[in-house]
Amino acid sequence: MNIENELKELTCTIANPGLNEDGSYSRLPFSEEYFLSVQITADILEKEDLDVHIDTVGNVIGTLKGTNPERGKIMIGSHLDSVKEGGLYDGALGVASAIMCIKLLKENNIKLKHDLLISGLQAEEGSPLGGTFGSRSMMGLISIDEEYEKVLRSYGITKDDIEKAKIDTGDIKGYMELHIEQGKILETGNISIGIVTGIVGISRYMITIKGECNHAGTTPMRMRKDALICAAKVLTFIDDQAKGRKDNLVATVARMEILPSAIAVIPGEVQMLLEVRDMEKASIDAFMEKVKGFCDQLEGFDIDIRIIIEKPSVYCDTDFGDAIREACDIEDLTYTAIQSGAGHDGNAFGSKMPIGMIFVPSVNGLSHCKEEYTKWEDAEKGVRALYRTLLLLDEKIF
Amino acid sequence: MNIENELKELTCTIANPGLNEDGSYSRLPFSEEYFLSVQITADILEKEDLDVHIDTVGNVIGTLKGTNPERGKIMIGSHLDSVKEGGLYDGALGVASAIMCIKLLKENNIKLKHDLLISGLQAEEGSPLGGTFGSRSMMGLISIDEEYEKVLRSYGITKDDIEKAKIDTGDIKGYMELHIEQGKILETGNISIGIVTGIVGISRYMITIKGECNHAGTTPMRMRKDALICAAKVLTFIDDQAKGRKDNLVATVARMEILPSAIAVIPGEVQMLLEVRDMEKASIDAFMEKVKGFCDQLEGFDIDIRIIIEKPSVYCDTDFGDAIREACDIEDLTYTAIQSGAGHDGNAFGSKMPIGMIFVPSVNGLSHCKEEYTKWEDAEKGVRALYRTLLLLDEKIF
Repeated sequence: MNIENELKELTCTIANPGLNEDGSYSRLPFSEEYFLSVQITADILEKEDLDVHIDTVGNVIGTLKGTNPERGKIMIGSHLDSVKEGGLYDGALGVASAIMCIKLLKENNIKLKHDLLISGLQAEEGSPLGGTFGSRSMMGLISIDEEYEKVLRSYGITKDDIEKAKIDTGDIKGYMELHIEQGKILETGNISIGIVTGIVGISRYMITIKGECNHAGTTPMRMRKDALICAAKVLTFIDDQAKGRKDNLVATVARMEILPSAIAVIPGEVQMLLEVRDMEKASIDAFMEKVKGFCDQLEGFDIDIRIIIEKPSVYCDTDFGDAIREACDIEDLTYTAIQSGAGHDGNAFGSKMPIGMIFVPSVNGLSHCKEEYTKWEDAEKGVRALYRTLLLLDEKIF
Repeated sequence: MNIENELKELTCTIANPGLNEDGSYSRLPFSEEYFLSVQITADILEKEDLDVHIDTVGNVIGTLKGTNPERGKIMIGSHLDSVKEGGLYDGALGVASAIMCIKLLKENNIKLKHDLLISGLQAEEGSPLGGTFGSRSMMGLISIDEEYEKVLRSYGITKDDIEKAKIDTGDIKGYMELHIEQGKILETGNISIGIVTGIVGISRYMITIKGECNHAGTTPMRMRKDALICAAKVLTFIDDQAKGRKDNLVATVARMEILPSAIAVIPGEVQMLLEVRDMEKASIDAFMEKVKGFCDQLEGFDIDIRIIIEKPSVYCDTDFGDAIREACDIEDLTYTAIQSGAGHDGNAFGSKMPIGMIFVPSVNGLSHCKEEYTKWEDAEKGVRALYRTLLLLDEKIF
């Protein structure tokens, strides 16, 4: 079997329902395109003789029976949804790689001891449902208030559907996922495999700066309390602080609203969404203390910093990491430990079971856009690492 | 006659069609409310025995015949439109003050030598038509291309209407306007009358900063080209430079667009609209040279600065200024020379005739909002200054 060609065809087949005219892909959560992709995946898994189940929230899960089912189950997979106008690889490559493992088992006439679950997951990308929705549903991690029930209804699902999607995790021994890096550390270092040590925590803060809205023609410079100028100083401080660190903490303001945003009116208020990511919550907290300290000494402005989202970090399992390392050695692939700056379904699964993740290089680090690209020869190396790790884990874990 | 009460009633009557439930006023250009206000003004002027004409673009002009019409005409007035949800005073107070001069002439049995034109002007405030539309139409300053013809059509007017609104300025000896300051220089200095020396020029620039759009979780700080952080530096430089000057130049960024403005995506591009105002174009140019110089030394970003609007400044006539000063002395009013940071119909009239402007204090400098407020006792002082100036000019100018 030519793994490279087979993998390419599988990935394109699975991703195809979302293909746009410009070459980008859109398989939004719960969209028609998403469910077409689920159906295609289900058909492929059935053809490979797996028991296939599409759950009440739209995850597809195929089960390949093992020879010693008392050993429990190993799950591999990724998500089938995409961002709007995203690329071919994000998610789809991980599902295709998992299916490739089935094909390689068959070709090599190997039967795993564990049951193998192949999952194609719903709504991993950001949406009103919150990210990693499919995996969180499976793990029973969705908490539902009235507001959220409305969101669910707008997607055509109920509280009951969420309840039914929950699975028994008692006999699942772990989750493995292959994913594109979405950054350029592997590419820059010319390294084939990233062995993920953990997925960073994400804290998001709404910073509201209140100054004084005034006529931009008639208010002398010395009489101004321009909220945008104050925001510029806060932004520069945040960036300088983050750049001055020796660890991997990142801080980003991606959105900002200026009020009233009218020509010839000095901005009276600025709201900006600050996101800080790191493996250690203590580092994030210490960073935010410095930001608060800086804001406190800015005179003439009323600055409020409110935390709005706090996703804890998740460490990958060291035994899984060791297995990936051993697999890379066997397959003669270069590798490095790497931390995932992006969230993944491993966030949800990691709360209930050991997880392991394999990254493959992203050309120019681009993702979530049509330019997203991973060389097929690199993707093939990822599949070999994933398959070999699976064989090792099947031997090692009980 | 109680000038204060009469003035208050007149102002409220003229402004009334735009009164909103929350106490703000909306008489947008060419709106039903605007034309109701025009009709009310026309009725008042007719009752005062003026010849009234509403022109093809919706300016209302009343003529009071003078005893020596060969001396020419003097025009006084202001605009009748308002911004959306603006205040009572902006424009309406100026028109009411002009009408008060007619009433005072009558009460004091004085007949002017010059013809007196009272104008209530259309679309002075910003709109797709461009500001000072009514006065620019009268002065023949509207240049019409295909694009602009579409805008005109959307307001129900034609090229021909613009042509017909143009007046012969040969025998008009000057234009006088009373307006609220829309700033707090008079209030802060506890001064009754601002004698406007000129209306600043306005240059607007679109600054486009291109960096690199990337994943906010997976791109280390050192690998980023965050266009928003670059914009923050440019903003801080602009503000520092403007604040460090000894003249009255003001520089403001009131609007900014961040692309793609998506959560977890490092801003790849920022567009910001910079407005610089000053009496001297050379000062604005020198200021922008510094901004360009700063931008040029920021590495890793592609920064483009494009001028999009350039309105020249207009100096008020010194003879008119002297007349206002003399009038203030006669009426025993405190005064100061002041520059107008906001544009006015004087911009248009000033290109064809001498102009003079009287400012009255704005409480807290607020304007273009429902909180806009001028004490009626201060407005009354303005009317006295305007009336007395008119009598002086009638004697002095030929």
